[in-house]
Formats: sequence, structure tokens, C-alpha cells
Amino acid sequence: MFNSFGSLYRITSFGESHGEGIGVVIDGCPAGLKLDFPFIQAELDRRKPGQSRITTQRKENDDFQLFSGHLDGMTTGTPLGFWVPNTNARSGDYSHIKDMYRPSHADYTYDAKYGIRDFRGGGRSSARETIARVIGGAVAKLLLREISDIAIEGWVESVHELKMTGLPEVPFPKLETDFQQAVRCPDPEMAEQMYHLIDSMRKDGNSVGGVIRCRARNMPAGLGEPIYDKLEARLGSAMLSINATKGFEIGSGFGGTSMTGYEHNDLFVNENDQIKTTSNRSGGVQGGISNGADLDFRVAFKPTATIMKDQKSVDAKGNEVIVEGKGRHDPCVVPRAVPIVEGMCAMVLADFMLLQRTRRVR
Amino acid sequence: MFNSFGSLYRITSFGESHGEGIGVVIDGCPAGLKLDFPFIQAELDRRKPGQSRITTQRKENDDFQLFSGHLDGMTTGTPLGFWVPNTNARSGDYSHIKDMYRPSHADYTYDAKYGIRDFRGGGRSSARETIARVIGGAVAKLLLREISDIAIEGWVESVHELKMTGLPEVPFPKLETDFQQAVRCPDPEMAEQMYHLIDSMRKDGNSVGGVIRCRARNMPAGLGEPIYDKLEARLGSAMLSINATKGFEIGSGFGGTSMTGYEHNDLFVNENDQIKTTSNRSGGVQGGISNGADLDFRVAFKPTATIMKDQKSVDAKGNEVIVEGKGRHDPCVVPRAVPIVEGMCAMVLADFMLLQRTRRVR
Amino acid sequence: MFNSFGSLYRITSFGESHGEGIGVVIDGCPAGLKLDFPFIQAELDRRKPGQSRITTQRKENDDFQLFSGHLDGMTTGTPLGFWVPNTNARSGDYSHIKDMYRPSHADYTYDAKYGIRDFRGGGRSSARETIARVIGGAVAKLLLREISDIAIEGWVESVHELKMTGLPEVPFPKLETDFQQAVRCPDPEMAEQMYHLIDSMRKDGNSVGGVIRCRARNMPAGLGEPIYDKLEARLGSAMLSINATKGFEIGSGFGGTSMTGYEHNDLFVNENDQIKTTSNRSGGVQGGISNGADLDFRVAFKPTATIMKDQKSVDAKGNEVIVEGKGRHDPCVVPRAVPIVEGMCAMVLADFMLLQRTRRVR
Amino acid sequence: MFNSFGSLYRITSFGESHGEGIGVVIDGCPAGLKLDFPFIQAELDRRKPGQSRITTQRKENDDFQLFSGHLDGMTTGTPLGFWVPNTNARSGDYSHIKDMYRPSHADYTYDAKYGIRDFRGGGRSSARETIARVIGGAVAKLLLREISDIAIEGWVESVHELKMTGLPEVPFPKLETDFQQAVRCPDPEMAEQMYHLIDSMRKDGNSVGGVIRCRARNMPAGLGEPIYDKLEARLGSAMLSINATKGFEIGSGFGGTSMTGYEHNDLFVNENDQIKTTSNRSGGVQGGISNGADLDFRVAFKPTATIMKDQKSVDAKGNEVIVEGKGRHDPCVVPRAVPIVEGMCAMVLADFMLLQRTRRVR
Repeated sequence: MFNSFGSLYRITSFGESHGEGIGVVIDGCPAGLKLDFPFIQAELDRRKPGQSRITTQRKENDDFQLFSGHLDGMTTGTPLGFWVPNTNARSGDYSHIKDMYRPSHADYTYDAKYGIRDFRGGGRSSARETIARVIGGAVAKLLLREISDIAIEGWVESVHELKMTGLPEVPFPKLETDFQQAVRCPDPEMAEQMYHLIDSMRKDGNSVGGVIRCRARNMPAGLGEPIYDKLEARLGSAMLSINATKGFEIGSGFGGTSMTGYEHNDLFVNENDQIKTTSNRSGGVQGGISNGADLDFRVAFKPTATIMKDQKSVDAKGNEVIVEGKGRHDPCVVPRAVPIVEGMCAMVLADFMLLQRTRRVR
Repeated sequence: MFNSFGSLYRITSFGESHGEGIGVVIDGCPAGLKLDFPFIQAELDRRKPGQSRITTQRKENDDFQLFSGHLDGMTTGTPLGFWVPNTNARSGDYSHIKDMYRPSHADYTYDAKYGIRDFRGGGRSSARETIARVIGGAVAKLLLREISDIAIEGWVESVHELKMTGLPEVPFPKLETDFQQAVRCPDPEMAEQMYHLIDSMRKDGNSVGGVIRCRARNMPAGLGEPIYDKLEARLGSAMLSINATKGFEIGSGFGGTSMTGYEHNDLFVNENDQIKTTSNRSGGVQGGISNGADLDFRVAFKPTATIMKDQKSVDAKGNEVIVEGKGRHDPCVVPRAVPIVEGMCAMVLADFMLLQRTRRVR
Repeated sequence: MFNSFGSLYRITSFGESHGEGIGVVIDGCPAGLKLDFPFIQAELDRRKPGQSRITTQRKENDDFQLFSGHLDGMTTGTPLGFWVPNTNARSGDYSHIKDMYRPSHADYTYDAKYGIRDFRGGGRSSARETIARVIGGAVAKLLLREISDIAIEGWVESVHELKMTGLPEVPFPKLETDFQQAVRCPDPEMAEQMYHLIDSMRKDGNSVGGVIRCRARNMPAGLGEPIYDKLEARLGSAMLSINATKGFEIGSGFGGTSMTGYEHNDLFVNENDQIKTTSNRSGGVQGGISNGADLDFRVAFKPTATIMKDQKSVDAKGNEVIVEGKGRHDPCVVPRAVPIVEGMCAMVLADFMLLQRTRRVR
Repeated sequence: MFNSFGSLYRITSFGESHGEGIGVVIDGCPAGLKLDFPFIQAELDRRKPGQSRITTQRKENDDFQLFSGHLDGMTTGTPLGFWVPNTNARSGDYSHIKDMYRPSHADYTYDAKYGIRDFRGGGRSSARETIARVIGGAVAKLLLREISDIAIEGWVESVHELKMTGLPEVPFPKLETDFQQAVRCPDPEMAEQMYHLIDSMRKDGNSVGGVIRCRARNMPAGLGEPIYDKLEARLGSAMLSINATKGFEIGSGFGGTSMTGYEHNDLFVNENDQIKTTSNRSGGVQGGISNGADLDFRVAFKPTATIMKDQKSVDAKGNEVIVEGKGRHDPCVVPRAVPIVEGMCAMVLADFMLLQRTRRVR
């Protein structure tokens, strides 16, 4: 509830965009896990601002500190306290919107809920909070490596109307070109087009949305907790708690609603003494439990609300105002959101792996 | 976790399709709520099988009993224990699939997870469990009536490729024709087409999916609990825990990903001293908190996995088998799922209404 | 929270003294556990009223029904729904106290909390609710039998000022005399004295309190979840949630406060390659985690508030009234509370056994 | 669970004795609370080491930093992240016990549970973790001030066999003499005797235990959540999670077991149109819910396990060893534990105050 996520593998996060920094406590991580610090930093680097011309120009290294929970890099079973200081917050940038409600931001709703709001950089509603998710996800990935073969791979499937079709190679290919790296789309031609579209939005002070697709390969069957904590329910909750998301679908998703059952059903076959399906419209989940096929889901991100254009709005007293577009902005959040989506997925799967240890007498 | 849903207003359900019945305990319902028993039964009647030619012909009245938690129909603050006996379970119908894995059912995954499975009618994975959701939702609606003006209204927006456009009247119109009632689509012409499509699927032993759209009007601003229990996250989790769902979107959803920020942002205006938005691409939620606009979301349901056609599959030993299509089936679940979607939405909102009482010092 | 207890092995209970009955849902019980129905009934029989002359004369068999969660007596991993109907509730007995507040009962506090109260037999505050605990505990004992060697044994250590000294034999001896059986004290002479004291209280319409001591033998080291869910914290919470309890101590308890550290510390020794302690003032717990020694704790029960004597009190309007002592009453609750204490202990240990499966990478 | 405490007002703590410091996240604190920073520091000062000759000579100021959750000292409803760095940890002091199990410490049990242990200063099992409880409690006290008249007052009732009788004045008197301040016992003569006893133990390298008694005055009726989250159950859990506690009793406690019901029952009277009791053997709780009388409970603390004497023990391989008594130690923990007991009580009451807002329809 509130600022904690997960049952057994659980994070609790704190911190605001323009406060001291972002912290996250990981509780329930099993003892005896070797922490790969460079990996955790590398995951943060995939999320950090200022990576390329098409992300916000706020420059921060997002270096993490680990305050507790380990002995020489080995987890002890006690809570891991991570901390990432804010180093490039410019609160002054926000004084002009102190009393204004920016369109499609959380300014108005935080005021309506709490009666007070930290206006500096969106406060707690800022996407800077996702640092906590990436750290929690990075440690979950390390745990999954130790206790499973699961590999989680996210990519940008679409930006605005530019859409990559099909699935990337297995295992996931290196993103080789600068465009691929900047956009995180494995299709090189599509990546280039996406890059130019986002860059044109940036120049125009506008923004675009997109879709991230994510798969988890080498899934064991049996993960997920019916009835109310089905795998897709927990995953959906995880994804829809990320800033700017407006939709989630698994397997055939909305598209599958225009199929018939005879077309849609995934048939079971025996493949070298393993039970497999010949198709994966289920997206790896049946009855809320993984079936061993690849977990396959999509997350929709709206175009960033922060744009460099003047917009009509009101202030806290209800007066009409013009919200000026100025400051720094991300013309498209999806490239930076890939490690966030993967991280949330990793935490869900790590939690369910632990829970599954308790679901049979032996 | 597992078979409980909600934080303060919480249900815990039990029971299987072909066991004794379905039970649900509602804990955390505030004291002093007058229970409208005919309303609760009416909600169950909207879900019950055998309502029309296009639903499963399993005939059950789904009459509920209330075992505890009230004094002469007034809640006492102690848990409400509801019970709906199974009266028309034909377990014999399932002996032929005892060891088989029906395609896109939960047979294989329950075995993989638990090492044992109640094969009769799908056991716990059966949609009969949704009785618990409808009861929990009906009581939540009664609570919302007392403590808010919120009105929750769901309808069938699409079946296969037949799609109603636009929004229904405010307040929601009576479903007048037999077709409208059977299909729960407020557009009379579309309802008739949908009816015939579903009926043709029924005759063919096939099935179709569809989309339910739901709105909540007269929403207060301030509901939802960032960061990990945002309104859309909890709603998404609620919906994706319903049988046969494959997707959830709120407001502009997946469609919104192909807009620009300038097009997508909802502008605030002052309307008779109330802060409103001129559009609702946010679907009533900003930053995970309701903004007072209508909550507006969609849920995708796959075509029913149970079809009256023979399909290839394997048994528990990996042998190839033919799963014969026989018994009773629902050619399209969306009409009966409308009260389930509404009920889950009502529980989420009731819970957040209670939580919001605790989020300010005064 | 509220009417649920436990993390992974979790019960949710409902029902009142003079309503339809008492129900309990056990969620999180692992799949593949053979349910020993006669054992569950035998545990209920140890708690049931009317067992002997020194318990309340309300006569009920407390026969249970199991509605869900098993296939031919084997748990399936889905929730177990148990139900025990009330068969000898005489609500008429309570009409005279409908608006009165009985001294040291929950009448006044339920009114103060909820603004409404089910006055019949104490409603939800009645000890009849402990049926749920005994059932939950019985299944937990069955689970512990399968996954550990833990043996849980409670007994009456004192009634009023009559106190048994020392520990009973290992394994726990059969209670052979009628006095032992009625009182549940393994010391035959003390049992006889306790019996006569309680019987004299019964004749006088008065009541007495007492202490239950409980041990768990063959404990594995490692159970308990610091920092806030230490073994003694969870056990204490479990015991103090039982009706009429006023105190809990583990190991040396309050008596240990008048020792010095040098006297109190339990020394470790190597006993046949097992690490043991030469004394057990810790009561089997160090740092909130079991150390392999016997778990050893005590629970204080106040004298029953219901007595057959007239007492001054007030009614809901603040008028002075005389609460007449009439009806049926238990002159001392501790004999019947032994299976309740054991049951709560079993649930705590079962939960921690499951949690411990998740606390190491391997 | 694990390192979180509370339902709506919830803390999550992290950090070890000899790591970087101790952190605590307070989630669920309502928005709009003015934080009194000097008060929070003063509470920490009541707990800090080195206060007087009779506490450990580890010298640390325990200055806190607040990283998030407020705007100019006013809570915003988002999580408060507090941090207290360790400034005087001497890890070298512990190298000699790296592989040894100190008697009645958590060394062995942490190894048994996690397979790894941070041996430096007891790691997570150190009482240094109680900093988190004091901070969480201090903020809870500030909240209670705003939303209630509740006043929480703890004191040392006994040290070894020295016991203060009766209750202190109302309101709680200033601790005027140095002895009173050092020992936190309001009886000046008893305080002096206690002081000298503790000091003699210090010189002898031994330790003693004691009892803290705590009351909460001006309690509203209605706090506590039956059946499993009764006020005494949650309080008991809170207290028994504190290091070195072995017992908890409320009201008449263990002593009450040797009374009869007629003697023990608290009679209700009408006092100026308020319903009061003429005695308080209930300790302010009936049926798990506060009745408006003073909450009155006791907590037993064992003598500190760390002593400056050589003791026999074993190492991790089972070899016999001598644990040498050296380093710094607290000859009696109860004086420093008073603010911890009060703080845990404050958190329980703040949580139940918030919960009670949700337990009636209006």
C-alpha cells in the first residue's frame, strides 16, 4: 500500500524530484545473494537523464549508495537501504508554476488529495521516483539469475504511429547503432525513424507517446497467485503504477477480442517431453499462472505532459492563467522507461518465485 | 494477497465451481450501513447463468445467504459472511477431461503450480468465483451511495469486431430491448448485431471476445494512493484478476500513444467555481489520483476458451489427446461480466474513499 | 488486519455468538496436505462447551463442515472454507441486557467504536469466535506434522493461586484422571484442587482466572522475522488477541527482570555436534528468532467477566442499572482455552516455517 | 511484515549498528502536520547512549536528517525518509567474537536463519535499530497532539528487585534529581537506589533487568480492531518486538489471575454525563477496544546479555570457546528504553486513530 510494492520481495521508496534525493529500501531479499554493484549502476544508467539528444537535458549521474543489508556485498537478509542524491535539481525553474495547475500533470490532484503539494519539479509525482524501481528491479534481476533462468527483455515497440512489427531475436540482440541505443528499439530502420520523430518533437517543444513491449523468457510454469493476485493482475498493477502509463495488455490483449475461441486457443503439445503450446496468445499466463511460455506484455505511455508550449489553465484560486512552456523536458519517455518496465517485471517475478516456494507441502 | 482483495474494504473469497458453493467474507465495511438485500440479489441476477439464449445454459438462481456481520440488516462493523450454494453442478460432465489439459484453460497451470487440481468444472479457476466479486461489489456500491455521489456504469462496447462508438447517455439509459438486455450494450442497433453474432457462435460451438467499458461519474478529486497504489494501478489489478481478461486501458489508453502532448493534454478551466477539464484523455486520473472528471476505462476479454469443438492437446503424462467439445458453454462472456467489472470498480473506489479519510491531519 | 491473522498461512474469520454460526477461511495452506478430519473435530471437542461440570452448560457439538479447498481430503492450495453452525444459541437470554453495559465486557466499547452492537451473547466479542482459531490451529498442526517435528503442548499452570510447579513429562503425558481432563493440568493433585476451586466458584456464581503455559518441542532454529515480526512479537500478538487475556511472557518473563545478566544468560554447548543451551531462560528465542530450544511461554487469563451476581452499572443513556447475573457462564476459561493457545501457536509457527523457505537464496 | 510496522501509519526501517547508520521511512503520515524538529531530536536524546554514567559509554549525538516528505517542515502526505548516521562505531571491537556465539545474543540465531551474519556490533540485531522506533514514535506523538488529547507517559517501575509502587502524579512530574533523570523513575528515593544498583553492576561488569510501565491518558473510547488486531494484541506485538523484552501485561496482568471475577470487574458509573469505570483492572481495554480509561501496561526487560565477564560458549564450528567480556556495555537498558516504549505505543495509537476514521459510515 502507498509507497511499498511487493509481498515478500518488497520495496519502500521515498524522496522527491527536487528534495535531497531518492531512496529505496528493499526488504525480503533472501540472504546470500552476491550484489553486482556495476550491474546495478548500469541499470540506473539506462534510465538516467541526458543520455542522448532526445532525452531531457537535466544531467545527473544517479550514482547510488548502499547503506545497509550486506556484508562485503553479500546480502544478509536484512533490509537494503539505497540512496541516490539529487545533484542537478533547479527548483527555481518551478517558481512560475507554484500556484498553477499544469495540464495533465499531478499538480491539481495532489492539492486536491493532500491539501498541500511540493511544487518543485512535481515533487513526489516526478518520474525521478522511478530510480527506486530501477534499483529494486536490478536487485530482483540479480536474484532471478541465481534462482532461475528467467531473462527479461524490454524494447520500444512503437513511438507515435511508428511501429516495429514482430519480435526481436533470441537472445535479445545488442543495440548497435546510436539510433537503436537512443531509442531502445531493436529494429535499426524503425529506430532511426523514431529517433528523428522524437528529435523533431523536441525541437518543436512538443512530445509523443509510445508502447514498450516486454518479454520474459525461460519462465517456469506455476508463478502467480489466484484469485486476486494473478500474474497478469500484479504485472498490470506494477506497470500502471509507472508515471505516464495508460494501458497494459498481455498476449493477444485488445487485439484478441476480435478473434474467435477456436482461433485464439493455444494448443498444447509434447515437445521433447516438455509440455509446450504451439502459439502464445495467452502471453505466457493461463488462469493467472505462468504456463512456461514467454511472458509477453505491452505497456502504453501517453505523450509527456510537459511541453515547451504555452497552454491555458487555472491557478489554485480558479483564475485563468497561461502556463508557459519553459525549462527541460523529455520529448518522449519510452526509451528511458524500458529499464523501469523491466525492473517492475523483475520484482513481480522475484516475488512470485519466492511465494511459489510456499505453495506446496513439499 | 492470494484470495483477499482490498486494503480497508477487503473481501476474502473461497469455493469452487463444483464444490458446495461460493463464499465471500467482507471485512472492513463500516458500521451503520443499511444493507439493501434485493439490490444485492439483483446484482447477482445480472451475472447469473442462463439469463438468455446467448449465455451458458447452466441454470442456477445464485440465491445468497448472509451469515454474519449485521443486526436486522444494518452492518455492525464485523465481517459479513456471504454464501451462495452451488445447485446445478454436474461434475460428471468433466470426468472425460480429468487428466487432460484443455487448451487455454487453467488445467495445466494449476497442476504445475499446486501439483494437484480440482478438475471438476475448472475448480477454483472457474468464473463461478466471480459471484464473490459481484457480492463484494454490490455492498461497495451501497456504501458508495451513502458516502458519495459516485455512479458506476459499465457496458459492452464491443463484441468481436462489432463496436459501439461514443458514450451512452447520462444518466445511463435503461436497456430497453431484449437485445440490449441480453448483450448489455446501450446502442440498440449494435446490440442486435452483437446478439446475432454471439448466437451464431453458440450454434457453431465457437466463442468470441469483446470489450467492456466502464465509467464512474460524480467522482470526487483525491482518490488513489501514489506511488504504487495509484488509482489506475489498483483498478488495473482489479480488472486483470477477472477471468479471461487480457488488457486494461484508462482514458486515451493505447490509442493515446499516437497523439502528441499538445493534442493529448487536458486543459483546466474554471466552470462555476469548480475546476474542470475541457477533455478527458486522462480518463479521470492524473498522477494516480482522481481529478474529478469521469473515471473512464476499458477491459479486454478474450474469446471463451471453452468451445464445443474437438481440439488437440496433451494429457498429464504428455500423451497426445483430443479434447472433445461437450457440455455447456458461454459463447461470449462479456454480457455477464458487466456487473463483475462494475463490482470490482466499486470495491476499489470504496476502499480509496475510506483511505482518503486518513490522508490529511484534518 | 481486522479479522485476518497471519502472513502466508492466513485465516479470516466471521460469525457471532448468536448468529448463524462461526466460519473461518484458511488461505495460503500449501497444496498436498492430507486433512485429518477426525483430528480437527477432536481439537474442536477440546474447546467445546459443556465438556464437564466446570464449564458453561451451553451444549453444542460444534460439528464442522468444510466447503472448499480440497479434493477428497487433500488440500489443493485454494482457500479452505470451514463452517460451524450455532445450534444452541438462546438469544432471549440476553434481552434484559440489551441496553446495559455489563462490567468488564465489550458491550460499551463496541458501542463506542461502531455506534451499534449485536447484544445477543456478546455478538462478535464472544469467545465463540475462538472456534475459528481452533480450526485454523488444527490444520496448522497437521501442516507442521508434515513439514517439521514440532510438537505443541499447552497446559493449565495455575488457577487463581493454585500453581503447578515445573514442567510436565516429555512427551506430554495423557491426562488420566477426570480432574486432569476437566482442568487440563498434568499434575494430578493440583488438578483435583483446581477442579474443586472452580466448582466452588461455579456454585457461588463467581469466577477465577489462571495461567496457561505452552511449549513447542523439536523446534528448528531460524524461525521468526526481525525486526518487527520477531517470534515473540507475533506469538504475543496471537495470544493477546484471545478473549480474556491480560498478559504474555516468554522464557524467564517478568521473573527474569530480577536476575543479573550473568545469572540469566543461556550458555551454548556442543551436544553431539548440535549447538544447544544449558538453560532456557530465553524461552527458545534469541533476537526474535528460534534457537532450537523449546519454545516456552505463558498466557494470563483474567477471571471471566460473566458472573451470576448482581452488579451496578449504567445503560446506554447513562442511567444507573443493576446487571442481574443470570444465564449460563464459565467459572474459569483456562481449561477450554488450552487448544486455543496451542492453535494460535501452531498458526504462528506454520506461517514462520513457510516464510523461512524464502529467506535464503538457496 | 519483516521490517515494517503499522497498517496506515507505517514505518520501515533499515541499517545496522556498525554500518553507515540507521534509517526509517514513515509512510501514511497524514498531510498537513507541522513537524517539530527540536522535539524529534529531544526524543532521540532521551534514547542516546552516553547520557549518564549508568549507560553505555558509546558517545553519539544521534543527529537526524530528514530527506523527504515535507515542505518547509509541513508534511505533504508523501513518505518521510529519516537518516541517523553512525559516528562512533568501532567495528574492531568485535573481531574477537566474529565466529563465536555470545550467550543470549542473536549471533547464533542469525546464522541459523540467514546462513550469514553481520558480526559487527550485533549488526541488525543491535538495539541501535531502536532509533527508528523513537523517530517513528516522535512523529506519531506530534500527530496525536494534533488529532487527540492523548498523553503517553512511560517510566521505570522496577530495576531488579527494586520496585516503585503506585502511579506517578498526573500530569507526569518533571524528573528533577539527577538520579530520577538518569534512571527515569519518578520516585526520587527509589530512583537513587536504582541508580546505585545499576552503577554497582556496571563496576562489576554485570547487568540487571527491569520493568517499564506506561500509561496513555485522555484516551478516546473506540480504538483497537477486533478480532485479531485488538489494542492489547497490537501493543503487545509492538513491545515484544523491542530488544531484550520478555513479557507484556495490561491492566491487572498476571496478578489479576489470582482474583475472582467479582473482585476484578470494573464497574461502570456515570460521571458528569460521561461513562467511566470506578477501577481500571482492564488497563483501559475491553474486548480489544479502548474504553476511555487510561491505557496502562508493563513491559519486562531481561538483564542485558552483554556483560564484561568471561563466559563459556561455542564457535560456529561447535568448538568450545571463552567469550571474553570487553568493550562497552549498558548495565541496564530500561532507562534508555522508556522513549522506545512510548514511541511504539504512540505509533500503535496513531494508527488506530486513523483506522477508527474508517469504521463507521459517518
